Amino acid sequence: MAHISIIGAGNMGQAITAALTRDDNVVDLLGKEDADKPVDGDIVVLAVPYPAVDQVLAQRPGQFDNKIVVDITNPLNFETFDSLAVPADSSAAEEIAAKLPNSRLLKAFNTTFAGTLAEGTVGPLTTTVLVAGDDADAKATLVGVVNASGLKAIDAGSLKRAREMEALGFLQISLASNEKVSWSGGFGIVD
Amino acid sequence: MAHISIIGAGNMGQAITAALTRDDNVVDLLGKEDADKPVDGDIVVLAVPYPAVDQVLAQRPGQFDNKIVVDITNPLNFETFDSLAVPADSSAAEEIAAKLPNSRLLKAFNTTFAGTLAEGTVGPLTTTVLVAGDDADAKATLVGVVNASGLKAIDAGSLKRAREMEALGFLQISLASNEKVSWSGGFGIVD
Repeated sequence: MAHISIIGAGNMGQAITAALTRDDNVVDLLGKEDADKPVDGDIVVLAVPYPAVDQVLAQRPGQFDNKIVVDITNPLNFETFDSLAVPADSSAAEEIAAKLPNSRLLKAFNTTFAGTLAEGTVGPLTTTVLVAGDDADAKATLVGVVNASGLKAIDAGSLKRAREMEALGFLQISLASNEKVSWSGGFGIVD
Repeated sequence: MAHISIIGAGNMGQAITAALTRDDNVVDLLGKEDADKPVDGDIVVLAVPYPAVDQVLAQRPGQFDNKIVVDITNPLNFETFDSLAVPADSSAAEEIAAKLPNSRLLKAFNTTFAGTLAEGTVGPLTTTVLVAGDDADAKATLVGVVNASGLKAIDAGSLKRAREMEALGFLQISLASNEKVSWSGGFGIVD
């Protein structure tokens, strides 16, 4: 059992809540109106769009210290829809990690559409969550929580792999936006 | 029916040959000993490792003009295994396209392991080939050839999307190298 705070009650925050409450976890889903509620979970999921992350960090100084913080963003350039809004040799996860030096930052949930997290399946496959990060214990904790929820989790390597995971997330959104895959489909993983 | 020349008789060249000969295509598989054999196909697949592409281009001046040329490479930095060997804001496909201004360059086959191309399946899914490129006719031709072979093909967008496809290929190789997925598995696509 884990105690998880999810900041952001949009479709991804709701889908991750649906997934993680299948197991016996305590999940606090914090929406915009909950800015004054504390972050009580040991794992904090930043389920807001990338441009909103800075505001969340400013609203909650020190609240992420010593916690496992999970970045789920796909930092698309929504003006051009043709690139990411972070430097090509970096990632949203690495940018956020630099702003939270006292947290254990992980990248996860950005390569799975909300529908596949809530359903637990991508077509005939169990939905698989890729988890990247530099803190092995934090990563093992999140992998365990995800596996216990009935999804599958795979350790995708160091936080640097967030670059490729964000590229994958971008490509998947691009395919769905162009109606090449549905929002309930996309990339599945066969192990 | 198409006439396809595949340069490089390694495991990827052989797997693409196996896939495309399921349909009624003419496929010339050219190995190292065939440097003096001409490129007769209308579609040419460069199935050599990225560092060997320049040598192939130098050996065959003008032979790729007016042809559909397919780059399948994953330009990993094999010393560090921690990054790609092309600039982060570019891709192997874009670098090769610049060297072949008279060809119609496509990116394809780099997100599917050899085993899944030869078998035609990734676990329970039909193997899906992503195809990116700036020439719509060339892309439609390759998509048609791949679909006719019993695999599925998806138009992944402009050649710029090769960046994300190469990130995906890199991530998939990294997962297999770390035994998180098998070389007969990896990413499948649910449409």
